[in-house]
Amino acid sequence: MENNNFELLSKIKSPKDLKKLSLEQLTALCDEIRQKLILTVSENGGHLAPNLGVVELTVAMHYVLDCPEDSIVWDVGHQSYTHKMLTGRFDKIHTIRKAGGLSGFPRRYESDYDDFGAGHSSTSISAALGIAKAKQLKGDKSCTIAFIGDGSFTGGLAYEGINNAGRFDGNFVIVLNDNKMSISKNVGAISKYFSAIRISPRYVSAKSGLERFLNKIPLIGNPVTKGLTRIKNWFKKKIFKTNLFEIFGFRYYGPVDGHNLEDLIKVMKIAKAADKPIIIHALTVKGKGYQFAEDNPKNFHGIGRFDIDTGEPLSHGDSYSNCFGRTICELAKEDKSICGITAAMTVGTGLTAFSENFKERFFDVGIAEEHAVTFGCGLASRGMIPVFAVYSSFLQRAYDQLIHDAAAQNLHLVLSVDRAGIVGEDGETHQGVFDVSILNSIPGTTIYSPCYFDELEKSLNTAIYKDTGLTAVRYPRGTEPKKPQDFVCRDVDFTVYGNPNASRLIVTYGRLFAEAVKAKEKLSSVGIEACILKLCRIKPINPEAVNFAANFKKIHFFEEGMRSGGVGESFEYELYKKKYSGSYSLTAIDDTFILHSKDTQALHALKLDAEGMYSIIRK
Amino acid sequence: MENNNFELLSKIKSPKDLKKLSLEQLTALCDEIRQKLILTVSENGGHLAPNLGVVELTVAMHYVLDCPEDSIVWDVGHQSYTHKMLTGRFDKIHTIRKAGGLSGFPRRYESDYDDFGAGHSSTSISAALGIAKAKQLKGDKSCTIAFIGDGSFTGGLAYEGINNAGRFDGNFVIVLNDNKMSISKNVGAISKYFSAIRISPRYVSAKSGLERFLNKIPLIGNPVTKGLTRIKNWFKKKIFKTNLFEIFGFRYYGPVDGHNLEDLIKVMKIAKAADKPIIIHALTVKGKGYQFAEDNPKNFHGIGRFDIDTGEPLSHGDSYSNCFGRTICELAKEDKSICGITAAMTVGTGLTAFSENFKERFFDVGIAEEHAVTFGCGLASRGMIPVFAVYSSFLQRAYDQLIHDAAAQNLHLVLSVDRAGIVGEDGETHQGVFDVSILNSIPGTTIYSPCYFDELEKSLNTAIYKDTGLTAVRYPRGTEPKKPQDFVCRDVDFTVYGNPNASRLIVTYGRLFAEAVKAKEKLSSVGIEACILKLCRIKPINPEAVNFAANFKKIHFFEEGMRSGGVGESFEYELYKKKYSGSYSLTAIDDTFILHSKDTQALHALKLDAEGMYSIIRK
Repeated sequence: MENNNFELLSKIKSPKDLKKLSLEQLTALCDEIRQKLILTVSENGGHLAPNLGVVELTVAMHYVLDCPEDSIVWDVGHQSYTHKMLTGRFDKIHTIRKAGGLSGFPRRYESDYDDFGAGHSSTSISAALGIAKAKQLKGDKSCTIAFIGDGSFTGGLAYEGINNAGRFDGNFVIVLNDNKMSISKNVGAISKYFSAIRISPRYVSAKSGLERFLNKIPLIGNPVTKGLTRIKNWFKKKIFKTNLFEIFGFRYYGPVDGHNLEDLIKVMKIAKAADKPIIIHALTVKGKGYQFAEDNPKNFHGIGRFDIDTGEPLSHGDSYSNCFGRTICELAKEDKSICGITAAMTVGTGLTAFSENFKERFFDVGIAEEHAVTFGCGLASRGMIPVFAVYSSFLQRAYDQLIHDAAAQNLHLVLSVDRAGIVGEDGETHQGVFDVSILNSIPGTTIYSPCYFDELEKSLNTAIYKDTGLTAVRYPRGTEPKKPQDFVCRDVDFTVYGNPNASRLIVTYGRLFAEAVKAKEKLSSVGIEACILKLCRIKPINPEAVNFAANFKKIHFFEEGMRSGGVGESFEYELYKKKYSGSYSLTAIDDTFILHSKDTQALHALKLDAEGMYSIIRK
Repeated sequence: MENNNFELLSKIKSPKDLKKLSLEQLTALCDEIRQKLILTVSENGGHLAPNLGVVELTVAMHYVLDCPEDSIVWDVGHQSYTHKMLTGRFDKIHTIRKAGGLSGFPRRYESDYDDFGAGHSSTSISAALGIAKAKQLKGDKSCTIAFIGDGSFTGGLAYEGINNAGRFDGNFVIVLNDNKMSISKNVGAISKYFSAIRISPRYVSAKSGLERFLNKIPLIGNPVTKGLTRIKNWFKKKIFKTNLFEIFGFRYYGPVDGHNLEDLIKVMKIAKAADKPIIIHALTVKGKGYQFAEDNPKNFHGIGRFDIDTGEPLSHGDSYSNCFGRTICELAKEDKSICGITAAMTVGTGLTAFSENFKERFFDVGIAEEHAVTFGCGLASRGMIPVFAVYSSFLQRAYDQLIHDAAAQNLHLVLSVDRAGIVGEDGETHQGVFDVSILNSIPGTTIYSPCYFDELEKSLNTAIYKDTGLTAVRYPRGTEPKKPQDFVCRDVDFTVYGNPNASRLIVTYGRLFAEAVKAKEKLSSVGIEACILKLCRIKPINPEAVNFAANFKKIHFFEEGMRSGGVGESFEYELYKKKYSGSYSLTAIDDTFILHSKDTQALHALKLDAEGMYSIIRK
C-alpha cells in the first residue's frame, strides 16, 4: 500500500461532484476509496470488511441519486464510511471513531446526508418507510432507499418492515447487500433462500425468456395444448409472483454484480424512477480488495488497529470474551445439558471453540436476540441449561422476552452479557449501560458483575449451578485490569478491600474496582483513608454488604451504567430500609447518551476513573 | 342458551378420555364446549371470539396427540380455554381470570399440559423449537406443536422463529390458525399472502395433478417438447418450492377447514407422524357458533362480562382510551402533521374514530411494536408528529427501538401508553408495571402520568406541542376515579392537595391520587393530617416539587409500578441531592410478578389502595 494523493477522492466535496466523472474515473475513484478505507481502519480501527464490500454500490447510488433530497437509510450503518467520504467528510475521515471526530455510524447530528442514525441491525426498512410516508404526505416525490445486508434480514424487525412496506404506493427501494455473511457466516432459511436465488444469476432474464415462450403457445387445440393452457394460466398467476419479495409486494431486480459499476448505475436509475416498492439484490464480496479481509471477513468485520502488510492486529491481550469462552467449554465438556446460543456473534462473544467442539448444542440464530431468548427458554423448560452470550447493547432487543418468557416463568436462562459498560469507539448505540437497569427491574433475576477473570469463572459457575431463574453474568470489553497483589476474590457476593474502620467507603462493582483501588491509594497519599466494598453479585445485594456499608458515615457509590434503575439506587434504597443516616453520594450516568471516544476518555469525563473518584471523595 | 349438563364435557378428565369418543360424540362435545365458553366468558369476561374459533382444532389435536408427552405451545394463549377444559380443568373453568382461579392464559405452574406460558404474541415458534431441540438432544421423539394465529405472524419474532425452525431435523409442527384477523382486521403483505392461498383451496391437490401431467410429457422430441422440458425442469426446481413456508423449509398442508373435525383429525395424524418441519394451515371463523361474536369478532376478542341474549357488555363507563381517542382526533383535525400508529390495537387503544377520519395518517402495522416505533421515528425525522398508542406491557417489545431510534436521535415520538399500571384479570403478562422503569432509564425522555381525563388531555397537548424528543403519556385501563370537588389540575407538572403545613406528605402519581385522597380523609379522622403531592409529569421531576417535599419530616411515596427504576427511587435520589434528612418510605412493586385478579384486589394486596396507604402511614 503506497502513499496516495487521493487525487479524485479529495476533490469530491459533495455527491454532485461525482456526476462529472466518467465511468473510468469512477472506477479509479473506487480504488482510491478502498485504499483510504484500509489506511484509515488500520490506524483507527473500525468496520473494514463491510465497508470494502460496498464501495461500488455507494458510488453508484450517489452518482444516480440527488442526496440529501433523496434519502439513504443505512442498516446497522457500519458500512457508511464511503458514504461519509463522498458527502463532504473526506477531510475528516481520519478522525473517525475518535473523540470529537466522525462517528463510525451514520448520525443525524453529523450531516444532512445521514438521514437516519443506526448501530443496531434491521431498522432500515421501517425507518425508511417512515421517511417515504412522510414525504408522500407532503407531496415530495424524491427517492428513499433502505440499504440492508443479508445478515440484517435475519432480524424480525426487518420482516416487520418489509411486511408493512409492500403496500406502500410510491417510491421505496430496498438495496439488499448480499455478501452471504451477517457478521459471522449467515444462518437460517432466509439465508438459504438467498443462496438459491444467487446460484441462478440469470433468473430475471430466464423468467422473461420463459414468459415469451409461454406467450407463443397457442391457447386452443389438442389436449396437449389444453393442458398447456392450464399450466400457462396457473403458471402466470402463481409462479411469476413467487419470489419471496414479490410475495411481500416488491418488484425484484437481481441478482446484480455489486462490484460492476456500470450495471449498478443502470439499476440505480430504475430505483430512482420507481413508483412502487422495489428491491435490488446485489451480490458483493465482504472485504473486497484487501486480500486478508476477503480471506477472513469475519475477523475483519469489526477490528482494532492492524498492520496493513500482514493483516495482523496491533493490540493483543486476553479478553473477558476469551475467558468466558474457555470457561463455558470446560463446563460443557462435563455437562451435556449446557447449550450455547449466540445472535450472529460467535467470534465476538468468544464462542468459536464451543461452536466447534459442541456442534449439537451450539446455536447461532442470526441477528435475532428475541428468538435467542425465547428459544433458550424452550430449551430450559425441558431441562437444558441454555447460556446466551450477547453484547449488552443488543440484549436491549429482547427485553420483553426476558420478562415474558424467562422471568415470568422462572426458567433458568443464563445470560453472558459481554461489552457491559462503556465500550468506547462505537459510541452511543453500542454502550453497554442499560443492561443493569433492564435486569434490575425484572423480578427474580440474579446479576453478577465480576472484575477479574477468576471472578468471571466463579460467577458463571454459580449462575449455572447454584442460581435459578433468569441469571446474568456481565463483563466489559477488553482485558482485565491489574489486580492488587493482596486482593483475594472472597466469594461471588461481595469483597471488602481495605480497612473496615476507614472514614469513607467506596462502593462499586465490575472493572471500576480497579479504578477505586487507585483512587484509594491516591486518597491515602493525602491522608484520607478509604475502604472499598466491591460488589460482584449486584442483584440481589447481599444484606451483609449493606450492613457493612451502614457502619460508614460517608459512602460513595460509583457505577458504570445508567443511574435510573441502577445498583446505586437499589443500594441507597437498601440503606434507607436500614435507616441509614450518613451521607451517600452516587456517581453514575445520569440521563445522557455517551458518544464515541476511547473508553478511558469516557470514564474520565464521567468521573468514573480513579481521578474522578478521588476528586469527588476529596470534595 | 339453555341450561346444559355438559354430559360429555364433564366426563373428560384428561385428553385420554377423548380417544374413546366417536366422531359424532366429538361433534356433540364441540357444541358443549362452545356453550360452556359463552357461559363462562359472559360471566367472567375474557377472550371469547378466539376461543370459539379453535374448538374443533383443539379437540382434534388432543384426540390425536398424547399430551403431555406431546407438546402444544399456544401463541398468545388467549385461545387455550378449550385446551384447559380438556386437560383436567373443566371443573375449575368457572374460576378463570379470578383471583386464585385458573389463568386466562397457559401457565406452567397451573398444569403439566401447559408446556409454555404466554400472553404476548409471536413467541410460540421459538419456544416450541427450543422444546423440540431439547427433546431431540434427549432422544425423545414425541410431537411438538406451535399453535399460532395469522395475526401473530405479523410479529417479527414469529419470523425469527420460522427462519430458524426450517432447518430442524425432527418432528416440528406449526398449526396456523388463520381467521383473517389479528385482533382487529389483519394487515400487511403476509396477511394478503395468506388470503391468496386461502382463495385457492384446491392448491395442494392441483399441484399434484399438475405434477402428474408434467411427468407424462415426453422429454425428447420436437422443439416444442424441448421447450417443455426446459419448463418442466425449471418448474420442478423452482415452482414446487415457492410456497412461502416451503421457502422456509416447511412442508405445507392446507388449507384445511378448521371446523371439520374429520379433516382435522386426518391432518393431525400427519403432524404427529412427521419427521420434518411441517405447517398446517387451518381456516377458522373467529367467534364461530355465537352470532354476535361472528358478526363482530373484534368486539368479542377480549371482552368484559356481557348479556348472552343481546351480546351487550354489562359494564359501561367512559374510558381513558376513549378520552385519548377523542383528544387525538381533535388535535389531528387542526394539525395535518399528527399521525396515529397502532400495533393491531385500533379498538383497544381508542383509535377507531381516528382510523376512520384520518385514513391517510393512520397506520395499523400489525402486532409489530418494534416496527411501530422505528417507523414512527422515520416519520418524525421528516417533521411529522407520530403518536403511537400502545398498551404498557406491549411497549416492552420495543425497548431497543425507543433507545436506539427515538431517544438517541432525539426524535419527537409521542407514546400514548394505555393499560399502564395494574390491569387485573389478564395477569402477570399484561400488567403495565414496567413502562416507567423502561422510560426512566432512557436519556432525555419526558413522561406524564395523569389521573383524570382533563389531565390526560392537557398532558397529551403538552407532550405533542411543548416537549421534544421521546415523550410518553401513560394512563390506566378503565375509567377515571372520582375527583374531589376542591381539586383543580394546576398544571401538568405537579399539584399540591391539602395543607402544606401538615405533618406528613403523601407523594404519588396516576390514579393512585384518588386512593391517596381517601387515605388522607381516613387519616384525618384519627387526627393525622397529611398533605398530598400529586405528580403528573414524572420525568423529569419538577425541582419545585422536590423542594416542596423536602419541607416535610415524613414522606410516603406510593407507586403503581416496579420499585427498581421507578419514580420513587428517582424522587429519593432528588431528595438526597437536596440533603433531605427526614424519613422517606417507598411502597411500590418490589421484585415480584402480579398474578391475575381484579385490579382492586391486586392494589389492595400491594398496599397501594387507600386502606394500605392508611395502614403504612399510621404505622
